[in-house]
Formats: sequence, C-alpha cells, structure tokens
Amino acid sequence: MTWELIGNRNVIEMEYAVRGPVPQRAAELRKQGKKIISCNIGNPQALGQRPMTYCRQVMSLLEDPSRIARERELKKALAGRERQLGLLSDAVIETAERILAGLGSGVGAYSESHGAVFIREAVARFIDRRDGASGVRSDPERIYLTDGASEGARHVLEVLISKPSDGVMIPIPQYPLYSASIRKCGGTQVNYYPDEDAGWTLSRAALEESLEQAKRQGTDVKAIVVINPGNPTGAILPEESIRDVLDFAALHRIAVIADEVYQENVYGGVFVSFARVLGERDVPLFSLHSASKGFYGECGHRGGYLEVRNPPRVKGANTDLCAILYKQASVSLCPNVMGQTLTYLMVNPPQRGSEPYDLFVAEREGILADLHAKATMIRDAFREMQGVKCFGKVGAMYLFPRLSLPPGTSDFDYCMALLEKTGLCTVNGSGFGQKEGTQHLRIAFLPPKDLLAEVLPAWVAFHNDYVRRG
Amino acid sequence: MTWELIGNRNVIEMEYAVRGPVPQRAAELRKQGKKIISCNIGNPQALGQRPMTYCRQVMSLLEDPSRIARERELKKALAGRERQLGLLSDAVIETAERILAGLGSGVGAYSESHGAVFIREAVARFIDRRDGASGVRSDPERIYLTDGASEGARHVLEVLISKPSDGVMIPIPQYPLYSASIRKCGGTQVNYYPDEDAGWTLSRAALEESLEQAKRQGTDVKAIVVINPGNPTGAILPEESIRDVLDFAALHRIAVIADEVYQENVYGGVFVSFARVLGERDVPLFSLHSASKGFYGECGHRGGYLEVRNPPRVKGANTDLCAILYKQASVSLCPNVMGQTLTYLMVNPPQRGSEPYDLFVAEREGILADLHAKATMIRDAFREMQGVKCFGKVGAMYLFPRLSLPPGTSDFDYCMALLEKTGLCTVNGSGFGQKEGTQHLRIAFLPPKDLLAEVLPAWVAFHNDYVRRG
Repeated sequence: MTWELIGNRNVIEMEYAVRGPVPQRAAELRKQGKKIISCNIGNPQALGQRPMTYCRQVMSLLEDPSRIARERELKKALAGRERQLGLLSDAVIETAERILAGLGSGVGAYSESHGAVFIREAVARFIDRRDGASGVRSDPERIYLTDGASEGARHVLEVLISKPSDGVMIPIPQYPLYSASIRKCGGTQVNYYPDEDAGWTLSRAALEESLEQAKRQGTDVKAIVVINPGNPTGAILPEESIRDVLDFAALHRIAVIADEVYQENVYGGVFVSFARVLGERDVPLFSLHSASKGFYGECGHRGGYLEVRNPPRVKGANTDLCAILYKQASVSLCPNVMGQTLTYLMVNPPQRGSEPYDLFVAEREGILADLHAKATMIRDAFREMQGVKCFGKVGAMYLFPRLSLPPGTSDFDYCMALLEKTGLCTVNGSGFGQKEGTQHLRIAFLPPKDLLAEVLPAWVAFHNDYVRRG
Repeated sequence: MTWELIGNRNVIEMEYAVRGPVPQRAAELRKQGKKIISCNIGNPQALGQRPMTYCRQVMSLLEDPSRIARERELKKALAGRERQLGLLSDAVIETAERILAGLGSGVGAYSESHGAVFIREAVARFIDRRDGASGVRSDPERIYLTDGASEGARHVLEVLISKPSDGVMIPIPQYPLYSASIRKCGGTQVNYYPDEDAGWTLSRAALEESLEQAKRQGTDVKAIVVINPGNPTGAILPEESIRDVLDFAALHRIAVIADEVYQENVYGGVFVSFARVLGERDVPLFSLHSASKGFYGECGHRGGYLEVRNPPRVKGANTDLCAILYKQASVSLCPNVMGQTLTYLMVNPPQRGSEPYDLFVAEREGILADLHAKATMIRDAFREMQGVKCFGKVGAMYLFPRLSLPPGTSDFDYCMALLEKTGLCTVNGSGFGQKEGTQHLRIAFLPPKDLLAEVLPAWVAFHNDYVRRG
C-alpha cells in the first residue's frame, strides 16, 4: 500500500480505554485459549446476568406478532396446561398489543426521528413519577430516544462545541465517552476533581477553582458533565452536591449534562435526579438514562433516552437547541425500534397485582442483591491487598480502588500484569483520568460469585507479590 | 429564556430534506386528522410491506430463548397438529440456536465493537459468493457491523475530512445523508453530475471536470461517493461506469464510498458491486449495505455493515484506517445486536430444500414484483402529467421525475401544495440537489396498489391544474 491518509486528528487521537489496550490484549489471550473474565466494561449479561423475563417475553412477541393469535389458540387448545407448557400471560400479550398499536407499523419501520411518540410520553410520565416533588413536568417533545445513552451525550456535545476554546467540565476520573467525544468535537476538556478521600463528594470550591483556571487559559466553558451514580467511582451524589452544581451552573451560565444511567444501581442508597432538583433555575439540563444498566442490563439492545430542560435559543438559527437535536437525530433516521420498546418497558414495569408482577420484583431484587453482594466480596478482598483503598459507598457497577504501586510502575502495567496472571480484565485508572500522582483501576463487579470466589484469592496473591517485588 | 447559545455552525446549518420541512408539515397535517401517504422516505413497512416471516420467527426466539425448549415441548404435546397451530420449523429453531451459540451471551450483551465475529464472517462469505469472480476475498476484520448503513458512512467521512478544504465528491442529485455529514464534518461538498437525459449514467469526463473545478478552488478531494442503485434517481450503474469511477479514483488517489444499500432492488436489472470490479486497483473502497432496503425493508432494526478494502495508512498514527474505524465504533460500544442478527439472516437466507425456503422465496418474489408494479403505476401516471419526464431504468425504491413548473414556482412549493391537496408526502428535488434550472421531486414507490390507484388520479388532476394556473 502506498496510500497515506492525512485524516482528522481529533478522531485519530481520541482515546477510549474501556475498549483500549488492556481489553484488546484480553481478546488476544482469549483467542489463544486463555480464560478471561471481562470486568473492563459494564456488560452484565456477558457475565451471566439473566434478562428480565417480562421484557423479553413482550419483545419476543413484537418481533413476530403472528404469535399473539397463535398464543391465544394454544391457550384454548391446551386449557389447564398453560403453565406447565409455559404459555405467556395475558398481561404480556396485552402489553405487546399496546406497543404494536402505539408503533402503528411494528418494529420494522422507522419511527419518528426522536422516537415513537407514545414511548416519549411514557418516558415523560416516568420522569414525573420519579421526581414527584419537582413541580415541573417533563415534555415528551423534549425527549429523544437514542441508541444507548452515549448517542444522546454525543449529540449534545456536537452542537455545544463550536470552536477549540469551547470547554466542557468533566469529573476526574470520568467515563471516557466524554473525553473521547470532546476530543472528537475539537473542544477543550476541563477537569474538575471530586474529593476521593471524602468518598468522591463534590465541593463548590473545586468547581469554581476548575472554572477559574479554565478561564485564565482562555477556555469558554459551555457545559459541565456530572455522572451520578459515578462511573468509574460508583459514588452516589447527595442532593446538596446536586444543588451546588446547579447553582454553580446558573451563576456562570453553563449547561449541565447529567449522566444518570446508573440511577437504579444504588444498593440501598438514594438516587436524586438533577431534573428534580433543578426547579425553576434557568439552566439548560440534558439528562441521560439507559436500559443497559440498572437491573435490566440490556446493553446489546442499545436503548436509552435524553431529556432536555430549558433548551437555550441558538444564535443565528431562529430556533432553540431542541430543533437542532431533532435534526441530528433525523440524519440517523431513528434509534433502533426494539431498543425503543425496551425503554418503554423500563419506564412501564408491570403493575402490582398483575400476573407478571411477582416474578418481575423477585428478579429485580435478586439481581440488585447479587450485584451488591459481589461488590462486597471484591471490597473484602481489597482489605487483604497491601496499600489498596476503596472510598465511598457502592453505586453503579464499578469499584475504583486506589493503588499504591512500586516506583516506576503504572496502573497500566499493573492491569496488564493482572490480566496475564489471572485472566481478570480491568481498566487502568489512567484510562479515566486521575489526580496527578494517584493510581487506580476500575473493576465491574459483575462476574458470578463462584467465579469471584475463585479469582479473588489469585488476585490477592498477585497483588501482594507485585507490590512487594516492584 | 435568556440563554442564547453560540453552537456548532456545521451542525446547526446542516440540512436533511428527507425529514425536512415537507415531512414536518405532513406530520402537522396528520395530527390534525388529515390522511397522509408518506412517500418521503424509503420506509416500506410503514406502508404495509410485511416483514420476511423467516427472519422474524428466528428473531422472536432470540429475544426469548426459553421458547426454544418450549417449542420442542409443544411439538411433542401437539404431535400431528404442529402446522395447524403454527409451531416453528426445526430450521428456524436451529438457526436461532446457531446465532445464540455464536453470540455466546445472547442479544442483551454488548458484542465486539465492530460486531460479533461470526456475523462478520458470514458477511464476508456473502460478499465472496456475490462477487464470485473478483478473486479478492473479503476480510471479516475489515467489516464493521453498524446501526443502519448511515453510521458507516458517517464514520468514514468523520475520519477522512480533516480540514475545511477537504472535499468529497457526491453525485447531484444525492441522498442528503452525504451533504449533511460533509457539512457536519466541516468539509467541502464537491458536486458531480450524472447525465439525466442519458438515464443518469456517469461519464468519466463529468468526473474529471468536477475534480478540476474543485482543484482550481483549492479543494483537496479525498473521496467520491457513488450510490448504486441510485438514491434518489433509482438509476442502476453499468459495470463500465463502475470501472470508470475506479480508474478515476486510482489515477487521482481518491477513496471510493460505494453506497450499495439498494443492491437487491434492481427489478430484473443487474447489480454489480464496486468490490467486484475493484480487482487489484490500489483504491481504498468503503462499501455500505443494509437490512433496511431490498425485500427485507427492516428499517426499524437499524442493521447494516461497512466493508473496507485497501485501507490507507494513517499519517502520524502508525496504523491503518481500520484501527481508527474500530475506535470510532468502540465509542458507541457496539451496534444494536438484534440489528446484527438481522444482518446475519440477510447474508444467510434459507437454503434451497430447507423447510422455510419455499415461503421465503415466495415472499421475496412477491415483494419485489409488487414494488416493480407500483413503480410502473406511478410512471404511467407521469405520462398524464404535463411536462413530467422520468429518466432511466427503475431501481432502488424511488422515482425522481423532472418537473416543468410555471415561472416563479419551485419544486418545494409544488411538493407543499401536493401535500396539502392530496396528502401525498414527497420530497422536493432541491432537497437532494439538482442541476441549475431543473426541478424534480422524489417519490418512494411504496404505498399499497389500491392506495396508489386512489391517489394517482388526484395527483394528475392537481398537477395539470398547478402547471396550468402557475
């Protein structure tokens, strides 16, 4: 090949550690036959988490609606043996019919660019129920169904960033979707630093300091990203911190991007949404949610939504930002419709008293309790590892312990060595960003308990050997 | 609201007529209760085309794999009545099992960033079968499964365009995904003009002229887009034109983006792929295909792929373009997995002699014959419309007739008036670009025949009145 391309530097140089060198090495090792435990990514079903029965039964009918009539035929033909032969409940069949009626043309037609209207309406009602006390109602016309939450974040950043000096504040550590997307859009990443020793809490002073420094460097900060519950930290923000961020944003006229995809993953903690706390503040708010996390864990279906409050007017366009987001959505035609229907099911779980309710609740509680137990097992193992500290409560699907490594070694070296030695694939803290001089890793607490029971002693042994030998 | 955002001009000003002002007006009219016939977009199932039974039966099992065992139980319990009660064939069940085995963790887990490997391998075998004579084998590691074909096109343009003077040649008229994406990436759109009077054929001279003019204006042309079969024109390129494009690209060191999503929509014509004609030419080729078109028409599932040949090295990155495309895919985590499985089914149709084969063929032939008949009905109606001419063979899902409108009126005015008068939603030719001084519209030939029989006379009457009154 004699061709050499001078390509887009922003695209060529962006980094995305969650699928970066450590996972790529893991893929090579797996091809060579080594047993790999993929804790580099929040992909629950890849590690054995089962999908919610109710959702999949409904979605199965959506793919083949002829089965609805057939199911009813079978019920007649097999009266009395329905349960034994696993026929679907009326509630499942009726939900599928309701979704098909809402879609009009089934799951194989493009929907509206920002998603089917009945699903956007259901999302709005879900938000209103969740945020009961906020007083401001969610508007279905300001909801954008998306292929996973990432797409919504990308669309917002694409329109907010107009020149290299436009900045977006992101927490350090952060989920690299944000650093990668800011880079891709050609903007400036402005770091702010939650306080690790205080359980990754946020202080107003830290926000002001970060903004001041950005201004001194000529950066025009357009937005602040907050990830709550945190990724990679797992931290759960108290309402007070949310209020601090919104007051800060209002004062400095900065938009807020609230990544709330882990809102169900709080394990007894309390999730408070930015929309709920926003109230009458005149702050543009972009909130993200997804069916990939929580207890659904439906990553492969790429279902999610973006909700916008207080969209700013757009200079020179005689419109507000929502019209631009609509246009961005329309160039992709529409989010995948099966993912949309999953989002519908997520915001419309079975009602108490309905036939699928008890199983749904049992599965939900089982999955969340299991996740919490697995996080606890891993944290317990950290106590046996020399110099490993893990701060804050458990949230999301990740632990982000701080490591004290021998001089001359990095957390990247550590994660690579851990992978080679134990098959455990994690991501080095430097892939998320971290305070100068600190080192970490992120582990998704998803492997089955028996697998953890097997690998954690090997990790402890590897670790204590690694830090001892240097 | 007192906020005003100075946003990204490239995003704010991009245009996408397929979901633009005419369709938006149609949506308003529909809300008011008017009957709208959506011919603005190639969305077959929205206009009553039925999905392929085989695909949906398999996909229904993928959503709820517990049904596989259940289906077998039912077969035992209902021996002799399987057909009467519509139980699934063994071939359907086995295909679902094969896909689930290939995925490993079902449809709810993220796959590899560029798609599950067994599906990429199946795509490569499909391409090799289709292009038999080409002699160059398709490489699964250079195949990227995507959320519809649009995503692949966007990723390629994002990395190719590095500065405002980077140009991409596109046919006029073109599918506005390209103009919108070039605009969004901040590059320069370079028009070339297929010859309408010669049935939208391509000439080497027209390509050279377009390139020369771009160079004179300081534009550095990086790639040429070819849409075959054409959108919006429906034209089917002869092999000779494909060879011309490839020779042109080789001579001037330009990459080729071949949008081949309508490769099944040729109605007796012959489709020849760019990959087949490429041979040993040292030209980077990006080929797109999709499950949204053809006889599948599964737009809502957002399944598609991008195949790369001869990826150029990337300056300053110590890698080739495929590594960058992989990274872009990884930031979106993965294409939706149900869409991937549909792509698998598209490239792996039922084998002759298998139980689903006869129905599959009957459905396929029925859909394609129906599409052709509908195109013919509309072309026949054009003959009754004063000054309407429609050039070339029938391909894709569109007709793009030339209009002779009264002075002072535009094709946009015409399409708006047509919508208000008849409910027929088309897209004005100016939304796709057209030669100075010509006017057109694009109509998707998808409405059911009885609906066409009803609306075409109304269109003829409207038309002749419109051009007479001016």
